[in-house]
Amino acid sequence: MSRVYNFNAGPAALPLEVLENARAELLDFNGTGMSIMEASHRGKVYEDIHNEAIANLREFMDISDDYAVLFLQGGASTQFSMVPMNLLPPGETADYTNSGTWASKAIKEAEKVALINVVADCSKDIPTRVPLASELNLTSNAKYLHVTSNETISGARWNDYPETSCPLVADMSSDILSRHFDISRFGLIYAGAQKNLGPSGLTVVIVRKDLIEGAPDDLPTMMRYSTHIEDNSLYNTPPSFSIYVLALVTRWIKKVGLENLYKQNVEKAAVLYAAIDGSDGWYKGTAVKEFRSDMNVTFRLPSEELEAKFVSEATKSGFIGLKGHRSVGGIRASIYNAVPVEAVNELVKFMNSFMRANG
Amino acid sequence: MSRVYNFNAGPAALPLEVLENARAELLDFNGTGMSIMEASHRGKVYEDIHNEAIANLREFMDISDDYAVLFLQGGASTQFSMVPMNLLPPGETADYTNSGTWASKAIKEAEKVALINVVADCSKDIPTRVPLASELNLTSNAKYLHVTSNETISGARWNDYPETSCPLVADMSSDILSRHFDISRFGLIYAGAQKNLGPSGLTVVIVRKDLIEGAPDDLPTMMRYSTHIEDNSLYNTPPSFSIYVLALVTRWIKKVGLENLYKQNVEKAAVLYAAIDGSDGWYKGTAVKEFRSDMNVTFRLPSEELEAKFVSEATKSGFIGLKGHRSVGGIRASIYNAVPVEAVNELVKFMNSFMRANG
Repeated sequence: MSRVYNFNAGPAALPLEVLENARAELLDFNGTGMSIMEASHRGKVYEDIHNEAIANLREFMDISDDYAVLFLQGGASTQFSMVPMNLLPPGETADYTNSGTWASKAIKEAEKVALINVVADCSKDIPTRVPLASELNLTSNAKYLHVTSNETISGARWNDYPETSCPLVADMSSDILSRHFDISRFGLIYAGAQKNLGPSGLTVVIVRKDLIEGAPDDLPTMMRYSTHIEDNSLYNTPPSFSIYVLALVTRWIKKVGLENLYKQNVEKAAVLYAAIDGSDGWYKGTAVKEFRSDMNVTFRLPSEELEAKFVSEATKSGFIGLKGHRSVGGIRASIYNAVPVEAVNELVKFMNSFMRANG
Repeated sequence: MSRVYNFNAGPAALPLEVLENARAELLDFNGTGMSIMEASHRGKVYEDIHNEAIANLREFMDISDDYAVLFLQGGASTQFSMVPMNLLPPGETADYTNSGTWASKAIKEAEKVALINVVADCSKDIPTRVPLASELNLTSNAKYLHVTSNETISGARWNDYPETSCPLVADMSSDILSRHFDISRFGLIYAGAQKNLGPSGLTVVIVRKDLIEGAPDDLPTMMRYSTHIEDNSLYNTPPSFSIYVLALVTRWIKKVGLENLYKQNVEKAAVLYAAIDGSDGWYKGTAVKEFRSDMNVTFRLPSEELEAKFVSEATKSGFIGLKGHRSVGGIRASIYNAVPVEAVNELVKFMNSFMRANG
């Protein structure tokens, strides 16, 4: 069996060891005589996995008991609504930064539910970037400031989160557990699992419990964070297999070492950006340098024809997922935690060879 | 490896062949060099699986193009809200039947969103049952009548759905694809996948498209059926692995034959109820005979002590998931499509032997 070099933006590469473990026990989990997919979510077999995943996430991100760690469904797209529904009772407002496609979606959904303020907008800038702290026109009574930590499509990210008097709320779908951050500055973090954490169908939400105390009583039960906090994300049937794979990913992270992983992420991105910057402008990075993402490396070639040829030849050579998002074009290499250093090194070789042949 | 006899209520037993297929290609799906979990939801590799699952469901249930078949997240518990939010614009009303725990939950969520009428309530009846058609106090202008097709906890089901001038809306979580029904009488059907269709984390919704035309514009994007209809359930990242396993389950159904499966379900239930009814009252069925479920067979023993002993000894003998729901106690054997005839036959042997030893 030959595995491809997988640069998909999400669902994305998973650690080989995680897949091997899942395969080994797919018909008989831990000697129980059944697959973890067939286990009741009300039984100890499953609950141990559920709680192990939560405990490991708490350890990795140094999450105190003031916060709940939730396993929900519906992706970041559902969180775009749940966040303001729960955190902004009538009369409350929040600030939003617009840094690109995903931030725009968060804003659009929040505006349906509450009165919010867009305090900076660089969503249409080329080269792509996120706002500067100095550009933010903050509202004094905002309950939170929303940031899209890493824009998966544009390849721009927040390096330093803005200083605020209110808590930050962040969409970390594409960079959670990719680097250090100080949880105490955040009121809520949400992330679809299918990029850095596991398979799709699972959304991780980390929420400071005091912030949801004013949530209106008439919210649908499933849309209330309190429902899921009270029942440890077991109010209804959870996406148990996705949570199980997340648990395996957290075990893999412990084995690799969180610090090693963070260091490796910086190195992987540096290697790829060095190839871009060393090409004398043949490859052009899409994001402003100081906002470059370590997770989604976006760049252009001299023409769209060459980009199409690049993607096509790369695919034939075993590199998949390199086509930029259909809304922006270009090339995107998503190099999440599970993408091995080797894949990045091989991609750089391919890029150099492609440039020599076509430059 | 020894597999247990799995009578879990959901997540529940999956066909062994499905698990074996999933295992065989877990690291390399169809020669792509990656797991289906790692495939982009925007690529042909995944989309073929997605569309195959939809096509097979359409074929099995004879679903016309007037209906959309959707793959959503959040379980039936989310549908309890989405149904009235989309089908009942201001000024519209609907009728609900209360047949037990799950119907009560559907009613509670609908009442948060719209004015609805509970047209019959036998949710507290012992023995358990669903309402009689003659008991329904239908509203003339109701947009739909909601039924919980099979009450997973009580073990009672609708044998014949009521005749109505409006379309039926049904929670079929625990009996979808277990027996024939006439789709043309339904406006909407929803079902969590984790009982008869596949793993948890996936909700199948079948909706007659004309019924949602009046849905308010200000609904959250993810809570609008139209969002998912327009994008073939690919507006955002779907729970792709759960959909893949569902696709494998539909292949297995084709191989077994839908008619054979339906026949087997009747036979499996008959064997189990015969053991109960042939015990001279030592085992007592929980549901009124004419409303007995073919999927969740519920019964009591002479005492709670004996019930605890039954569950404990059954577990030691390799029968799992037999404890009744914590809210009602007793014994429940969930015998969904994937539970083999052999498991039911062995359970009957165990029941007879347990009765002889303790009766």
